[in-house]
Amino acid sequence: MTPDLALGIGANLRKSAYFDATLQAGVRSFSVYNHMLIPAHFGNPEAEYQRLIDGVVMWDVAAQRQVEITGPDAGRLVQYLTPRPLAGTRVGQGRYVPLCNHDGLLINDPVLLKLAEDRYWLSVADSDIHLWAAAIGHERGWDARVFEPDVSPLAVQGPKAVEVIAALFGDWVRALRYFAFRETTLAGIPLVLARSGWSKQGGFELYLTDSRHGTELWNRVAAAGAPFGMIPGAPNDAERVESGLVSYGSDMRLQVVPADPFEMGLGALVDLAGGHAFVGRAALSLRASQPPARQRCGFVIDGNPPAPGHQVALRHAGEVVGVLTDLVFSPRLQQCIGLGLLRSDRLQAQDLTVDLPGGDVRVTPVALPFDRAR
Amino acid sequence: MTPDLALGIGANLRKSAYFDATLQAGVRSFSVYNHMLIPAHFGNPEAEYQRLIDGVVMWDVAAQRQVEITGPDAGRLVQYLTPRPLAGTRVGQGRYVPLCNHDGLLINDPVLLKLAEDRYWLSVADSDIHLWAAAIGHERGWDARVFEPDVSPLAVQGPKAVEVIAALFGDWVRALRYFAFRETTLAGIPLVLARSGWSKQGGFELYLTDSRHGTELWNRVAAAGAPFGMIPGAPNDAERVESGLVSYGSDMRLQVVPADPFEMGLGALVDLAGGHAFVGRAALSLRASQPPARQRCGFVIDGNPPAPGHQVALRHAGEVVGVLTDLVFSPRLQQCIGLGLLRSDRLQAQDLTVDLPGGDVRVTPVALPFDRAR
Repeated sequence: MTPDLALGIGANLRKSAYFDATLQAGVRSFSVYNHMLIPAHFGNPEAEYQRLIDGVVMWDVAAQRQVEITGPDAGRLVQYLTPRPLAGTRVGQGRYVPLCNHDGLLINDPVLLKLAEDRYWLSVADSDIHLWAAAIGHERGWDARVFEPDVSPLAVQGPKAVEVIAALFGDWVRALRYFAFRETTLAGIPLVLARSGWSKQGGFELYLTDSRHGTELWNRVAAAGAPFGMIPGAPNDAERVESGLVSYGSDMRLQVVPADPFEMGLGALVDLAGGHAFVGRAALSLRASQPPARQRCGFVIDGNPPAPGHQVALRHAGEVVGVLTDLVFSPRLQQCIGLGLLRSDRLQAQDLTVDLPGGDVRVTPVALPFDRAR
Repeated sequence: MTPDLALGIGANLRKSAYFDATLQAGVRSFSVYNHMLIPAHFGNPEAEYQRLIDGVVMWDVAAQRQVEITGPDAGRLVQYLTPRPLAGTRVGQGRYVPLCNHDGLLINDPVLLKLAEDRYWLSVADSDIHLWAAAIGHERGWDARVFEPDVSPLAVQGPKAVEVIAALFGDWVRALRYFAFRETTLAGIPLVLARSGWSKQGGFELYLTDSRHGTELWNRVAAAGAPFGMIPGAPNDAERVESGLVSYGSDMRLQVVPADPFEMGLGALVDLAGGHAFVGRAALSLRASQPPARQRCGFVIDGNPPAPGHQVALRHAGEVVGVLTDLVFSPRLQQCIGLGLLRSDRLQAQDLTVDLPGGDVRVTPVALPFDRAR
C-alpha cells in the first residue's frame, strides 16, 4: 500500500452514481479514473483482499466508463478500432479488445459488449477513448454515433459472488458464461448484468443504466450480500498483480510507458493473418516482423520495500534494461512481487536491481501469472 | 473551498516534475488533471488568494500537459483542429484556441504555442487531446507527428511576478507581451518562458523542457521570489471565477455539461466567414444560424452555502433552466458567486434558485466578468 495524501473535491472531478453510497459505507480513500472519483479502499485493504479471495466484495467501478457506438456503421467502426477480429461475436457476448493508436502502441484495453448488431459498449480503462473513436468514425465518414451513455458499473467479486447475484436475480445467473451478459432489471432498476470483473476470483458486474438509482442499487446489493459476509472494497492491486491482470495507466500508458501488444503478451489478439483493416495495422505488421525487444513479466522482489507509487527503472550491471511498473506485497505468496517490462535478452537474469527511493533492491524475473510460480 | 478526502497514491497517477519539491514546500491537498497529480492548496487557500492579488505566488501546473505537433503538415493539422483562424500567428506567439469535436461541442481549450513554422504545442486542459489530434492527423494522411514532449509548466502569477522573473532572467522579460514566449535557459536548465498563466493578475509560465531539473528549477524560482514575499500556491478557484476564466472539466465537459463555443461566449473565435476547414465546421455553421439557447453567465448567490463539489441544476418556477457549474466565496466581492449556463430567455430572471445539498438557494444572474459588477 502506498500512503494517502489529501484530495481536493472540486467540480472538475466527477462523482460516481454510487458516490453518496460509498461515503455512507465508509470509504476512506479515493483515486481518480476517467476524470471520476473511484474508491481506493474502505480502511482495511488487507481485509478486502482476503474477502475477495475467500468470500465476496462489492466495488464501485462506475469510473470504468462506457463508450457507446451505435448506428448502421457501428460494427464496422468497432472492428476498425481493434486488431482483434470480432467476426462471430454474438449479441450478449463480451470480448477483451486491446486498442492501439496508428503507431501500434496501446492506448486502452476495454471489454467490448455487443448489445445489438448496431450497438456496442467499450468499457474503458483510463483514457479518453470517446474522443479518439468519434474522431476516427467522423473522419472516415461512417454513420455511427459515439458517446458516453449513462452507465455505472458495480462489481460483485469473489467465489461467493454467484450466491449474491443468484439471490438477487435468480438461479439463471449460474449458467451465464464468462463475459456473457443480459439486459435485465432489479426491482425496476434497469441494468445490464455481466459475468465479468477486474479480478481472477470470479464475479459479476451490474451496469446500471440510470444513475438516479445508484444509492438504491448499492443498498439492495449490499443487503443481498450481507448473509454471505460481503463487504465494500475496491479493485485490489495485490490480487490483480498476483493474477497478472493488465492495468492501463499503471502497467503502460502511451505518454509514460509506451508499449505494443506483443510486448504486453497480447500478440495473440492481433489479427495480422486475417484481412480486416484496423488502426495501427501497418505499424503492428512491422513490429510483428521481429521478436519484441521487451517482454512483460512478473518479478519477485527482495525484502519488503514500500511501493514507490510510480514506475522505476530496472538495471542489470548498471544498465537500464526495463521498467518495474507495479510493486505489491502478495498475501498469497507472502513476498513482494511486481510487474514490468524487461529486455528480452535479460529474461533469465538473476542479478537485476530496481532503483527504489530507499535504495537498490534485487529483483528476479518470473513467468506470469504468479500462480504458476507456486 | 470544498472538503478534502484522502487520495491513494498509485502508479496510475502521474507525478509532476515538481512533485518532490511541492511535498517539501508543504503541499496539503492535490487534485488530478490529465492523469497527473496537481497541487490544490498548501494549507491556506485564502492567503494564497490574497498573495496572488497583491503579491506573487508560484504554482506547479505541470499537469497542463503539452501536445506537440511537428512535421511538414503540422501547421495544416493545427489549423484543422481549431475553429480559430491562425493565419498571421508568429513564431514566439501564443493563442487561445478552443477545440471542438465533429458535433461542434467543446472538448478542450488550450493555449497554442508556435515554436517554429513546423512545430507547435497545445497546452491542454483536462482531456486526452493527444489521442484525438493524432487520430485526425493519421486518418487524413498528413505528415505530422503528435506526441507528449517532456514539458512541465511552472507558473509565477500576481502583480509582482514580473519582478521575480526579471530577477531571474533579466529586464528583457518586462517587454514580453501577453502570450509571447521565448526559448531560454536558467543556469543551464532549458525552458520556454511565456507571459501567460491561468489568472487575471498577470504573470509568467516557465515551460521546463527537461523534467530531471524540476526540483532545481522550483528551488531557484522560490529563492528569487523570497524577497518579494512569494509563496507556493495553486490555480485559485476564487480568483478564476471572479475573473470569469473558463475551466474545461468544471464549467463544461463533453460527457457532463456539453457546450458549444457560442454558449460559452467564445463565438468570436469561430471563423465561419473565413474559408479554412476545421473539425466541427458544418455543425458549428448550423449552431450559428440561430441564437444560442443557453448562455454562460455569472451568478450572485444568496447567503454563504458551501460548494457542492459538482454541477447543480438552476430552476425557475420549478423548471430546470440551466446549470450552476462553480460556486466560490469571492473575497473581492465579499459574497458567494458562481458560473454556469442559463437559458437565454431567463437571463433577466430575478427569482432563480439552485438545488444545493443543504436546500434551495436564490441566485441572480450577472454579466461576466464580475469586475464589471462592481
